[in-house]
Amino acid sequence: MKLFFSPTSPYVRKVMICAHELGLSEKLELLPAKASPVNRDPSIVEKNPLGKVPTLLTSEGRALYDSRVICEYINELGSGNLFPKSGALRWEAITLQALGDGLLDAALLARYETFLRPKELCWTDWVNGQLEKIHSALTDFEMQIDHHKDTFHIGHITLACSLGYLDLRFEHLEWRKSYPKLKTWFEEISKRESIKKEWALPT
Amino acid sequence: MKLFFSPTSPYVRKVMICAHELGLSEKLELLPAKASPVNRDPSIVEKNPLGKVPTLLTSEGRALYDSRVICEYINELGSGNLFPKSGALRWEAITLQALGDGLLDAALLARYETFLRPKELCWTDWVNGQLEKIHSALTDFEMQIDHHKDTFHIGHITLACSLGYLDLRFEHLEWRKSYPKLKTWFEEISKRESIKKEWALPT
Repeated sequence: MKLFFSPTSPYVRKVMICAHELGLSEKLELLPAKASPVNRDPSIVEKNPLGKVPTLLTSEGRALYDSRVICEYINELGSGNLFPKSGALRWEAITLQALGDGLLDAALLARYETFLRPKELCWTDWVNGQLEKIHSALTDFEMQIDHHKDTFHIGHITLACSLGYLDLRFEHLEWRKSYPKLKTWFEEISKRESIKKEWALPT
Repeated sequence: MKLFFSPTSPYVRKVMICAHELGLSEKLELLPAKASPVNRDPSIVEKNPLGKVPTLLTSEGRALYDSRVICEYINELGSGNLFPKSGALRWEAITLQALGDGLLDAALLARYETFLRPKELCWTDWVNGQLEKIHSALTDFEMQIDHHKDTFHIGHITLACSLGYLDLRFEHLEWRKSYPKLKTWFEEISKRESIKKEWALPT
């Protein structure tokens, strides 16, 4: 399988963590990608018209995206239990994933606004709206995290990628100060090999 | 069940179409919602920190989001086959859904840029990047639509909602002129009761 890859994309990281958890990361050939909302990468667009990473090319040549689809596919391929099959735990897991993805969407939009857009076109209300979303999401995670101590599924992987992305790009938010239970949870989960590992394109 | 609802949200429409297809739309009590990325609706935020529609409150009081999660939940509740259970058809269906959702995300961002953001802060490159995504997605749909004539699943529902949203907000794109196969497909699918129907809050 081939995966359009970026070392800093939190959505790519979700896929890599799933693959590593299921012993499949060696099966992924990583392809370079220069995805940006204003300068699209034609090599990705050819396979995924949205021009986004992650995009997976399966061994049968089918293109799969986005991260939710790819993670579920990899889970199936590896006969994993990162996506509970049915019942309350499934809805909990995929709603938690949606919350983490939503936090990330907000963080990406805030970042594009401050790092990609010309300075003079920045709209403060927009950035503040996205930051509010990040904080509401963190508050919700903080309130429910005690309930998640003994489980590990796609929701937790997405939460770990969200917190990791805040460390990478929003260090100034100092989220650990306001969300102490999340801090402890993140320390614990970061001991897993799949979360510790960093991935890079082959040189 | 209760659903935070907006009559113009294409993601809400996905949920309503699934519910109607499975005979469950009468079971949804629609709640008013004023979701906006800069002015968040506290009644939604209390249940979904992302403050977005659709958000579903199940009869057990659990909050589920986003549209993908809710649609799958409703499909399960109604023992439907809008989400193929496994195999190639599942990956096809949920990747098609991701493509439609991606088109909608791009359309929403283009709309926020031109209708929500103060005029003097509009960035043309950003709008053009989103419009390019819309056109690449439509081109891809056009190329594969012949393959979809005899099936109906969440991918097709999402595509119908995407085209309906372009009619609502991007009439000036005149997509039917450039994508004749999609035009025919949309005419055909629009004969279904669930696609024809319009929903409104109870008065």
